[in-house]
Amino acid sequence: MLGQMMQQPLLISSLLVHAERHHGEREIVSRRVEGDLHRYTYRELGARARRLANALDGLGLAMSDRVGTLAWNGYRHMELYYAVSGSGLVLHTLNPRLHPDQIVYIVDHAEDQVLFFDLSFLPLMAAVAGRTSTVRHWVAMCDRAHLPADAAKIPGLLCYEELIDAQHDRYDWPIFDENGASSLCYTSGTTGNPKGVLYSHRSTLLHSYAAALPDSLNCSANDTILPVVPMFHVNAWGLPYVACMTGAKIVFSGPALDGKSLYELLEGEQVTVSAGVPTVWQGLLAHVQGNGLKFSSMKRTVIGGSACPPAMLRTFGEEFGVHVLHAWGMTEMSPLGTVCSLKPRHQQMDKDGRCAVMAKQGRVVYGVDMKIVDDDGNNLPFGSEKSGELLVRGPWIVDEYFKGEGGNPLRADAAGRGWFPTGDVATIDADGYMYITDRSKDVIKSGGEWIGSIELENIAMAHPAVAMAACIAAHHPKWDERPLLVVTKKPNAEVTKEELLAFFEGKVAKWWIPDDVAFVEVIPLGATGKMQKNKLREQFKDYRLPSA
Amino acid sequence: MLGQMMQQPLLISSLLVHAERHHGEREIVSRRVEGDLHRYTYRELGARARRLANALDGLGLAMSDRVGTLAWNGYRHMELYYAVSGSGLVLHTLNPRLHPDQIVYIVDHAEDQVLFFDLSFLPLMAAVAGRTSTVRHWVAMCDRAHLPADAAKIPGLLCYEELIDAQHDRYDWPIFDENGASSLCYTSGTTGNPKGVLYSHRSTLLHSYAAALPDSLNCSANDTILPVVPMFHVNAWGLPYVACMTGAKIVFSGPALDGKSLYELLEGEQVTVSAGVPTVWQGLLAHVQGNGLKFSSMKRTVIGGSACPPAMLRTFGEEFGVHVLHAWGMTEMSPLGTVCSLKPRHQQMDKDGRCAVMAKQGRVVYGVDMKIVDDDGNNLPFGSEKSGELLVRGPWIVDEYFKGEGGNPLRADAAGRGWFPTGDVATIDADGYMYITDRSKDVIKSGGEWIGSIELENIAMAHPAVAMAACIAAHHPKWDERPLLVVTKKPNAEVTKEELLAFFEGKVAKWWIPDDVAFVEVIPLGATGKMQKNKLREQFKDYRLPSA
Repeated sequence: MLGQMMQQPLLISSLLVHAERHHGEREIVSRRVEGDLHRYTYRELGARARRLANALDGLGLAMSDRVGTLAWNGYRHMELYYAVSGSGLVLHTLNPRLHPDQIVYIVDHAEDQVLFFDLSFLPLMAAVAGRTSTVRHWVAMCDRAHLPADAAKIPGLLCYEELIDAQHDRYDWPIFDENGASSLCYTSGTTGNPKGVLYSHRSTLLHSYAAALPDSLNCSANDTILPVVPMFHVNAWGLPYVACMTGAKIVFSGPALDGKSLYELLEGEQVTVSAGVPTVWQGLLAHVQGNGLKFSSMKRTVIGGSACPPAMLRTFGEEFGVHVLHAWGMTEMSPLGTVCSLKPRHQQMDKDGRCAVMAKQGRVVYGVDMKIVDDDGNNLPFGSEKSGELLVRGPWIVDEYFKGEGGNPLRADAAGRGWFPTGDVATIDADGYMYITDRSKDVIKSGGEWIGSIELENIAMAHPAVAMAACIAAHHPKWDERPLLVVTKKPNAEVTKEELLAFFEGKVAKWWIPDDVAFVEVIPLGATGKMQKNKLREQFKDYRLPSA
Repeated sequence: MLGQMMQQPLLISSLLVHAERHHGEREIVSRRVEGDLHRYTYRELGARARRLANALDGLGLAMSDRVGTLAWNGYRHMELYYAVSGSGLVLHTLNPRLHPDQIVYIVDHAEDQVLFFDLSFLPLMAAVAGRTSTVRHWVAMCDRAHLPADAAKIPGLLCYEELIDAQHDRYDWPIFDENGASSLCYTSGTTGNPKGVLYSHRSTLLHSYAAALPDSLNCSANDTILPVVPMFHVNAWGLPYVACMTGAKIVFSGPALDGKSLYELLEGEQVTVSAGVPTVWQGLLAHVQGNGLKFSSMKRTVIGGSACPPAMLRTFGEEFGVHVLHAWGMTEMSPLGTVCSLKPRHQQMDKDGRCAVMAKQGRVVYGVDMKIVDDDGNNLPFGSEKSGELLVRGPWIVDEYFKGEGGNPLRADAAGRGWFPTGDVATIDADGYMYITDRSKDVIKSGGEWIGSIELENIAMAHPAVAMAACIAAHHPKWDERPLLVVTKKPNAEVTKEELLAFFEGKVAKWWIPDDVAFVEVIPLGATGKMQKNKLREQFKDYRLPSA
């Protein structure tokens, strides 16, 4: 027997309709590629998104066709978020930092029909325009006056403002299956081809509800949100949707992500919540500390993408009164999995105790289920000391990659339910707080036991002479694998292998201490700034440990 | 094209699993019918709910069978919430304040197979047990030792604790369609038979997400929630679900709803959020003020069910620092429709301005859409002065009553979408804040214009000599209808008709002032304490206004 409630599909367009109707006067402020500050309201966003939807109709697209974007965070990108998904098309946000070859691959794989791009990316687009096979229209996100002369390099290039100026703002958002595809985002995948994650309207809306909850990102109509995380990176962690759901003011930083520009925007717009990766906050803190400044409105900042250094956590909290919310997720997870909001028993801890908890990735938001398993796939109980492979499931977690790329990614449990293996190795404490100790592929297995390379790297990097440290597995005849620490030194700093190894004593179990140190000039980094340990492993594949 | 996200139905059991797994140590505290205070954790709730689910299986029930409850707020009722719905049965919560004839009618209509009841209701159950036609099992919610001698009046009566003691706590919550029926609640309907509203797992879960949001009830793992609103009244406004979703501590008050008992529980358990109808808060405030007490933990209280008198709103806020959240909903709406949380522009108002906003029913929570229409069904814009009939739609709003009772309740708009007519007449301001001015059936239509009876009653009741006031329409040859004020005076108080009518001057438009006053001994009240204006209209149907 079914319940007798209205059958109303969860559609992204309803977020915009809600924001227009109930928060029509609330502002959206954007620093433009053109350099100036642009501001308008949800009411105007709604009207322009409807014009854009009419324009998309005029381009001859069919339901579920992919529409690509190469754009910074800004109001036009926001209009695309709603007009594209709202009208039944699929928004495909591309990472402009990728190599042109990868962009061509992804555009072709997604079969993008239209490509919208900010002027910053005109040279990049001109370089790939002749090489893609499905794109029928190229649209520069500006008005005619801002279009540079070399725009002619892309034949038939359209101009965003002209496109929407030609349309009226009446448009009825179509009603369709909430499981319909809404947006597409490719993972940067260090090995193999990039894989597409295809979100649905349902997954996006459930994720938005969960993300806005008090113990998640805690967003209200009284907040002003500045997502530093790019809109091409897992839908800016869902914040463009959360903003419409809650009626929060939203501030877009455009391409200017340096500390000074960010600080001016945070203060000028009285931002209360921000979200981004640690490296961006490093730049911001350097600017603020270097100039003796304060934050007058910012209450909390969400840090994800990679682990937040404990020192940053303390600086924000103790020096500036800004609460750091550590969060964890993945492109495959829409992205939110865990947020490190505290429980009552943590509130009573002293500063050090609280900081130790806040350094963890946190507890799941309701909707996501997670577990860790040992080598044989057995569930490890919460609160055990052991780390295990981290698996997740939930209605906003990938089931299969776009076009079935890479086959079925899930692993079935005893009840036949599929779990997504995150590729992370983690511990989960008795309170359900997850802490990532390693990537599965980076884990070091010594005598059948796992050693967490991230922990060892963090210790090494706390040494004043160390600039960067990577810990990788080296072959050992008796223990199978033992840790080898690869280190670059700071300019003019000196440290010996013996001094560095002694530095570990008392900080980890004795058998975790690396067997050897290799000093190198450079540790290779990937496009997103992460250490490429697979290259290091290749480089050291014939390395013989002194103990071996 | 469909998105490629995991297909995971939204099921009520997942709330319990989440609470057990991630908030296992968090407490549930109940004042029992037995008189004492009972406390245990979500972990124990989970184990006992699984035992109970096994017991229900043992009673030979089939999927979607209805299981009735007549119970106060307490942990056993909470176990029923999860075990019944979680195992695919339908939880039918009955209002014990109804007349036995109505209870028999509702039990038969719902075809309840089992009836669980608190010992307080043993006499009531004994009275109806022989008269219902579908109930196969009667279960007293206590242990054997507490079963009184006269329990034998119900042949074959089962005992709750024995029932679950006999079971093991392993139980796999079944997976089924999220649109499946989860619970059933009958409206008290002043005219016609009570009508059943059949909620689904999906509607319950979406409602829980929306209810927990920062601008709704704002619930976190750090909150302690005391729902004074009964669990037989629209699922205690969804709080038993929100508590599991967020990991909040929950406190159940049992049958003791007097000011002293509530205050002791609020303080003893350090409650941060409470929710109930105005009359309960009146008793609480009287106790607190009469004894010179303070609230040491309570941050906010949600008031719904009927409008909160502005004076109460001020007392809570100004005298006790407790923020009052005015909320509005209906059984047909799961129940949440609007919450009066403020917007940034309200925060800058002075106290009087803020209080005027807080006296409104508030703005919609995301998921619900509302509009007001005029007599011809035309939409009235937000921000107009005019009131209109209030219509709503959303995924947790009724589509049809149980068994199609009363036919299709919805009204279609131009696009063919169904809206539920709430039976309320309201205004909506430019910020989207809704304010109920009347029930549609009580509205007074003078010369084609509506006069709000609630507003007139509020003014009359502010007069020191007036105990209760009801404003009804009396026939008028020229204006069709004109307001007649029906009044009961306070003991030993005196006021004349002329004095009372003069009291309205300057407080409303001249043409709103009632044409006449009728003093009566008693204004009839219904089971839920509301004035029965239909009876008054019947009583005054031949009344001739002096102006007529």
